[in-house]
Amino acid sequence: MSNEQIDIAIVGGGVSGVYSAWKLQKEFPGQKIVVFEGSDHIGGRLLSVRPPNIPDMVAELGGMRILENTQHLVVKLIADLNVILKEAGKPTIDTYDFPVDKDQNIAFLRGIYLRLADFTKKPDEVPYNLSFLENGNGPGTIIVNAIEQIVPGITDPGHTEEERREMAKNAKFDDIPLNEWGFWNLLYRVISSEAYQFSMDAGGYDSTLVNWNAADAIPWYLSDFGINPKYKGFKNGFQQVPITLADLFKAGGGDIRLNRQLAKFKFEGGPFELTFSDGEVINAGKLILAMPRRALDLLMPESPRLEQIKSLISSVTPRPLFKLFTTYMSPWWRIAGYTNAEGKFVPLESGRSVTDLPLRQTYYWPKSDGTPATGGRSMLLASYDDGNNTGFWDGLRPRRSEAWSKGGGRPKLADPFIGEGEQGAKSGNGVKDGLNQTWDMYEAPRRMVEEVARQLQQMHNLDYCPAVKDAAFRDWGEDPYGGGWNSWNIGVKSAEVRDKIVHPMDDCLLYICGEAYSDAQGWVEGALQTAEIMLPHLLNKTEAKKQAKPAAAVAP
Amino acid sequence: MSNEQIDIAIVGGGVSGVYSAWKLQKEFPGQKIVVFEGSDHIGGRLLSVRPPNIPDMVAELGGMRILENTQHLVVKLIADLNVILKEAGKPTIDTYDFPVDKDQNIAFLRGIYLRLADFTKKPDEVPYNLSFLENGNGPGTIIVNAIEQIVPGITDPGHTEEERREMAKNAKFDDIPLNEWGFWNLLYRVISSEAYQFSMDAGGYDSTLVNWNAADAIPWYLSDFGINPKYKGFKNGFQQVPITLADLFKAGGGDIRLNRQLAKFKFEGGPFELTFSDGEVINAGKLILAMPRRALDLLMPESPRLEQIKSLISSVTPRPLFKLFTTYMSPWWRIAGYTNAEGKFVPLESGRSVTDLPLRQTYYWPKSDGTPATGGRSMLLASYDDGNNTGFWDGLRPRRSEAWSKGGGRPKLADPFIGEGEQGAKSGNGVKDGLNQTWDMYEAPRRMVEEVARQLQQMHNLDYCPAVKDAAFRDWGEDPYGGGWNSWNIGVKSAEVRDKIVHPMDDCLLYICGEAYSDAQGWVEGALQTAEIMLPHLLNKTEAKKQAKPAAAVAP
Repeated sequence: MSNEQIDIAIVGGGVSGVYSAWKLQKEFPGQKIVVFEGSDHIGGRLLSVRPPNIPDMVAELGGMRILENTQHLVVKLIADLNVILKEAGKPTIDTYDFPVDKDQNIAFLRGIYLRLADFTKKPDEVPYNLSFLENGNGPGTIIVNAIEQIVPGITDPGHTEEERREMAKNAKFDDIPLNEWGFWNLLYRVISSEAYQFSMDAGGYDSTLVNWNAADAIPWYLSDFGINPKYKGFKNGFQQVPITLADLFKAGGGDIRLNRQLAKFKFEGGPFELTFSDGEVINAGKLILAMPRRALDLLMPESPRLEQIKSLISSVTPRPLFKLFTTYMSPWWRIAGYTNAEGKFVPLESGRSVTDLPLRQTYYWPKSDGTPATGGRSMLLASYDDGNNTGFWDGLRPRRSEAWSKGGGRPKLADPFIGEGEQGAKSGNGVKDGLNQTWDMYEAPRRMVEEVARQLQQMHNLDYCPAVKDAAFRDWGEDPYGGGWNSWNIGVKSAEVRDKIVHPMDDCLLYICGEAYSDAQGWVEGALQTAEIMLPHLLNKTEAKKQAKPAAAVAP
Repeated sequence: MSNEQIDIAIVGGGVSGVYSAWKLQKEFPGQKIVVFEGSDHIGGRLLSVRPPNIPDMVAELGGMRILENTQHLVVKLIADLNVILKEAGKPTIDTYDFPVDKDQNIAFLRGIYLRLADFTKKPDEVPYNLSFLENGNGPGTIIVNAIEQIVPGITDPGHTEEERREMAKNAKFDDIPLNEWGFWNLLYRVISSEAYQFSMDAGGYDSTLVNWNAADAIPWYLSDFGINPKYKGFKNGFQQVPITLADLFKAGGGDIRLNRQLAKFKFEGGPFELTFSDGEVINAGKLILAMPRRALDLLMPESPRLEQIKSLISSVTPRPLFKLFTTYMSPWWRIAGYTNAEGKFVPLESGRSVTDLPLRQTYYWPKSDGTPATGGRSMLLASYDDGNNTGFWDGLRPRRSEAWSKGGGRPKLADPFIGEGEQGAKSGNGVKDGLNQTWDMYEAPRRMVEEVARQLQQMHNLDYCPAVKDAAFRDWGEDPYGGGWNSWNIGVKSAEVRDKIVHPMDDCLLYICGEAYSDAQGWVEGALQTAEIMLPHLLNKTEAKKQAKPAAAVAP
């Protein structure tokens, strides 16, 4: 039998995969542990690229922040990694305060221009027919108040996240447990349809208020948006975290193989038989699938063991996410500020503006030290879009006329947008900070850039905006991701699925982890949480196995 | 070899399937032609059921009308069938004028109550920030005007549908052919975002204005909504058409087998090998798949020949559709009319009202002779919803706690809505008119009915609405339909796909037909069109085959 034999195969080089690899390496120093990643880089949905000619900024095409006050696992991981990096004399992982809502920022809704502060200061100008009680509140307050109506007491800031999760789990509405309610259905019962629409439009997010499991949505919303969130961004890009983990794993003798796509796997009592897309077969004693739901779906048809746990896998739904960055010769948006009561001009410079146009959210992107760009080359996260508007942007991608399908990966860019006079100077992305992606790989096509520019100009009410120099985008709806994050389906008891799916079958050394099946869906925190729940199962099982059949874990 | 041998297998008992069967029977009188239908009834997305205790109404849970002035195939088919039915002394297929927009009907949008006539009569009260040119127009006019900007001259009523289709095919916008544009992207270029939103909200449809192939969307929209459409409904339900076709086919010796689900098929030069979900294997000389895209998708993984034409199959996208009917002891909506300038009270009684609530469209359902209900037991098409709001209603269906998935077919109704005092009197559905479905099979659950009632009351601005007696719904997003209709993807040249997919491979007697790959997507007309394009291929191929190898079409 000539197949390569390994002890632990980890499929997926996102945070949960490389974190698990790094942890397991310490537990099993002599074992052969291999991380297989389908793409050409480590990081999964963390994807940090340097824009051309702007050395002091990093574009986060994927995840871009953490919640410092509630996400203890990722905060501790970064602290631990920094101790190691400092000892090794390497650059540490540094964060900065990530601003979101600023009074002067714009809300362009239903054709009306407002400042974010106007939601509370000028309620009569808000173009939604809100009720007497709703009027004068911002979108976050409306949803928090609605949640308080659904689960009285839950928004008390004295509660821990764990307590809120427990309250939501035990609560009923109309005599039906919250996990059997859709969040959208419940919100419609306690606020007006206009308040719901305002909260979605002005809140900037579509997918958080859709019909997902209310018992999960409620504590999730309160942690993420509701109660004094403290966001932190990453000086050298969030991708530095998984890249550091991968580097440490490799330095400890671990093996990471890029461009290795698992096509199917088989388990019939002996070792796993992993078949890759190029036909190579590898045997593994244990298998960790550190993948999003859609990637599991794609494996399922030819992997009977996954078919067996289909109901677990399909307990979450992938949600759309589209991000597009644009660069300019100067931060033209500053002029769209206003003169305050003291006669002082307050520029637009940080945080985000929102609109109901397909742009949805625009972030005035900070420099790597967290300060705003005040002049010179600058960058916008021009569109952060997590709803159906992703279909709007998808329509502006070039089509391969020979392939009739909408799906099937990124088309070859027939008409890429090229910033005038800057050809040849694109590769602003060096290896010095470990970011191994180049901006060019994600270049946005001409029509998409033109439409983004048109909407940015309209949203800022300007008759002139300087030309876009460069633009890069990522639509996380593409395979194998299927979405930017996943949310629990109505009817699911998420805590049960979460604890079950990490090691779903007693007779099979198969393990599953990742953001999709966590309490913190859409966050690195969730990826770490499921890895932390999974690892003890793997260690125990290994112990048991060792006692039963010593040294027989791998060889058939 | 003990497998059953047949000449022509037709899989799918919708209109295109039974129409093809009926036609082929006349061409090949001696051949064994069998229609296999996965469900327990004929009709596909035509599904007509009689509500309990309302003998003079038929609820159309699927397709409900035709366009008499442009849909020549279906008009001719009905005329042909009626000649046959009359000769046989059987009841003919009778239609009535199907009303849509009435001046007095309600538009409840953004929390504001308007009459449909107010769009043009009281433009200042329309709660959308329309431009100077847009203001004062209804949603249809805005879109027709936008189309005229995109393809100048195309809305001239002197053009035939064929001419309009040709104009759209050859037109360019911004130097790019229309088939490479998304309809949504183009509309955003020529009208304001508020006009787009108004057209969607007030027009009542979501899926018609999404990002589908603009070269197809434009002539489709003009035929269906734009230029004086004349809708006709069916006295005994639209399902009477496929049931009549099936009856004629059976009377001619044809074989129809219900509850037969094709699981996969194989073709390796000899006859097709069809494997059904219960394991039965049947050999067929020719195979017609008369199915929607989603059903083809479900067959694909184990049917290599379909895998080969994946790009053709995936050239369209299924679109959501949800319909819910409610019955009452009286037509309470009549009171929500208004007193006109002559002092006469004009009741709500026919056509539809629209709202941006998840209800979207409510039709005051006509009696079987086309006249409005003026008293006594009455029925509403309470919600006709073709967008994301289908997810709202899906959330109100009971969950099977043992199955974690959102998908997987209709859950067993744990808490069905039962009209008080009417248990036991449910089966208003007889066989006398050939409708073989019962209302009970589609009964809506309690929570869904309560929410529909709440929204109907709000939409009509009434403090009291009488109780719902019975309610039935159908969500066509469920497998194997995947949607209520299909739309061409951006980048596709639809005429090429349409003509190719009917007989996609020269070396294989496989044929595909149905609404999905037609010029009249979402209509019975489209199902007939593709059958008409397909049938000559099948006849020619058979002729050629006959000459080459006489009498060897079937036996292996």
